[in-house]
Amino acid sequence: MSDSQTQLAHDLADRARIAARSLAITSSEKKTKALHTIADLLEARSSDIQASNKIDLDALGDVNAAFRDRLVLDAARIKSMADGVRVVASLTDPVGAIRNTKTLPNGLVVEKVAVPIGVIFVIFESRPNVTADAAALTLKSGNAVVLRGGKEAINTNKTIAAILSEGLKKSGLNPDSVVFVETTDRDFVNELLALEGKIDVVIPRGGHGLIRAVVENSRVPVIYHGAGICHVYVDKDADEEIALRVAHNAKCSRPGVCNAMETLLVHEAVAADMLPKLVSKLENVEIRGCEKTCAIVSDAKSATEDDWPAEFLDLILAVKVVSGVEEAIDHIETYGSHLADSIISQNQEVPDQFAKGVDSAAVYINASTRFTDGSEFGLGAEIGISTQKLHARGPMGVEELTTTKYIIRGTGQTRE
Amino acid sequence: MSDSQTQLAHDLADRARIAARSLAITSSEKKTKALHTIADLLEARSSDIQASNKIDLDALGDVNAAFRDRLVLDAARIKSMADGVRVVASLTDPVGAIRNTKTLPNGLVVEKVAVPIGVIFVIFESRPNVTADAAALTLKSGNAVVLRGGKEAINTNKTIAAILSEGLKKSGLNPDSVVFVETTDRDFVNELLALEGKIDVVIPRGGHGLIRAVVENSRVPVIYHGAGICHVYVDKDADEEIALRVAHNAKCSRPGVCNAMETLLVHEAVAADMLPKLVSKLENVEIRGCEKTCAIVSDAKSATEDDWPAEFLDLILAVKVVSGVEEAIDHIETYGSHLADSIISQNQEVPDQFAKGVDSAAVYINASTRFTDGSEFGLGAEIGISTQKLHARGPMGVEELTTTKYIIRGTGQTRE
Repeated sequence: MSDSQTQLAHDLADRARIAARSLAITSSEKKTKALHTIADLLEARSSDIQASNKIDLDALGDVNAAFRDRLVLDAARIKSMADGVRVVASLTDPVGAIRNTKTLPNGLVVEKVAVPIGVIFVIFESRPNVTADAAALTLKSGNAVVLRGGKEAINTNKTIAAILSEGLKKSGLNPDSVVFVETTDRDFVNELLALEGKIDVVIPRGGHGLIRAVVENSRVPVIYHGAGICHVYVDKDADEEIALRVAHNAKCSRPGVCNAMETLLVHEAVAADMLPKLVSKLENVEIRGCEKTCAIVSDAKSATEDDWPAEFLDLILAVKVVSGVEEAIDHIETYGSHLADSIISQNQEVPDQFAKGVDSAAVYINASTRFTDGSEFGLGAEIGISTQKLHARGPMGVEELTTTKYIIRGTGQTRE
Repeated sequence: MSDSQTQLAHDLADRARIAARSLAITSSEKKTKALHTIADLLEARSSDIQASNKIDLDALGDVNAAFRDRLVLDAARIKSMADGVRVVASLTDPVGAIRNTKTLPNGLVVEKVAVPIGVIFVIFESRPNVTADAAALTLKSGNAVVLRGGKEAINTNKTIAAILSEGLKKSGLNPDSVVFVETTDRDFVNELLALEGKIDVVIPRGGHGLIRAVVENSRVPVIYHGAGICHVYVDKDADEEIALRVAHNAKCSRPGVCNAMETLLVHEAVAADMLPKLVSKLENVEIRGCEKTCAIVSDAKSATEDDWPAEFLDLILAVKVVSGVEEAIDHIETYGSHLADSIISQNQEVPDQFAKGVDSAAVYINASTRFTDGSEFGLGAEIGISTQKLHARGPMGVEELTTTKYIIRGTGQTRE
């Protein structure tokens, strides 16, 4: 890495830091207005975005249809991107919220107030709408953002970034509130990841390779989404209809996403009755079962030890018969990824035992794991989903983009 | 590092993890009772602790009096350590608190609940009472703790750890809830710091060297306390009596601690009047002033550029005359450490401008920076003070030792 690259990284972070300082004291009204201006501009410049998007699509090599589709921005998607910015605009400003207040015996009044984190670095792949989403969420929460997208969407992202910049200027805000990294050079990302103290947090959004590279190289704290190995446990007191519906939704509605079910656990008392019905409902799903499962479901394959911690992201399901909720919890704690797990049960106590014992970001009782998503949780949008425990856990919205500050008001108090 | 060391580190973390799983579902009553049992045992075993402490003190080489004093545990200090455990016992259990609840349009009820983080690794130096403090705070918040103290206190710490273990067993809790690392080998610490996923967070408590070593070697997320470069800004509308009292308290009550003032900023409109009074009040303090300060205070030394970001931890003070609150904020944001800063002003608006513009864990209005401390903030005790922005900022008590989990209750909802 050259000195000039290092200098460029510092300059870029410094620009974002200066913008962050003004944003932190910008009024809610001004931020909201800026977001509407940006949304309107995105729609007004729809044809420019589509033209840039065509360049990216034309330059794509031989990729699969799903990859190409994620990259496409047509008029409808650009409208929906603008509407997404408007939804963020309509959210309550998280900045300034008083988390708690107390008066100490010496008369000091201590307030814990939500404030922006500062400079957020978002690294993402393929889907260019993340550019607008991430900028909207960080602007709403008073943070500056450094955005770095994938090289396959570079032209689309550049055009969107230019529109964001125009919208910020038009609204009287510092255009460095959103800094787009124009180079797709990986070394430059590492220069930025070294800037502990100048960049407050990095949020990588993308595949396992991207996330590991960031975690291993970053001196800046990272909030990331690990694997999604989600379980559904069908208890002996499960409602059959709910069990079938939830299992089908959790596995089949979108098998390639992180909140899809990867392992089904069934109570031994109901396995003989329920398993054939579940498997029949999950048609086209390859079943990899434990010994007991295979004895009940004749065409199931035998699961290997590798299947329990597997994130298939496909129409494949590991199935295990367990002796009860305790074994279910043990299995989930041993093999799960602590993202989302569900219990199907009408029992009065067992679901609470499950909810307490399963240490995951989201624990469901009689509902599909597929709801684990910022929009579904009513956050408006999400900057990512955290599978970690510090700072934020689960879908992250504008509130998770704040930290707190103590403001202590006195009348001359001193400490003895 | 040998394979056997690596294995030992894994075994140790696994033991703590198993204990953490039980602790997470242990009732408040049982935890509180265990803390009282531990407090009583610490007092009952006072002479054993003092005997071990004597071995450590006798083995001390040529160290300064302050270092030796931090290591001493006499009967009174052991009583006070036990009382500290009782204070933690009396705190509200943070586990299970519902941070918020909402019902989604589809009928799902989403609760965000406070839960223990899991396994906390505390690395500390010299003061052996941290062993009991940290164990009490982590137990109260339902976490297992791995404790590693300094080698100068190894015998004292071992004895305290054995008492903690006895108290846990007596209370029917897993003794691995508190795992004491008996080796003081640094490589072994690094083995533990590699256990991302098995250990949830590491909190180093000690000098700059310890903290940098942990930050640079850890794959486990770190929450730490950086420098304490605290400012007091005397505004043009300052109450003179308050300014003198707070400045004296912030600088002189305990100059060697992180929340002591290191730089005094004075509004130019009142500098000629106030500076001589301030300097006279701060007798025995070496003044390193800007040009304007030196013109007013004849015996001040000239400050160099190195003095503004300096953490003197001594009776030395950098002093700068500024044009107003904006320059004060700029100076603090440029040179400060974002721990604690104070404004002295009777103005109606300027203090709020200061509180918004200064990006520190604690911002004081007409009070001393010296209050930045868990006990003073009414947290009962503190596991440390965070100068970082993610997860916890400022003094960290039991609440900061929790994370959250979403518990979602449904009636068979599936996602479209």
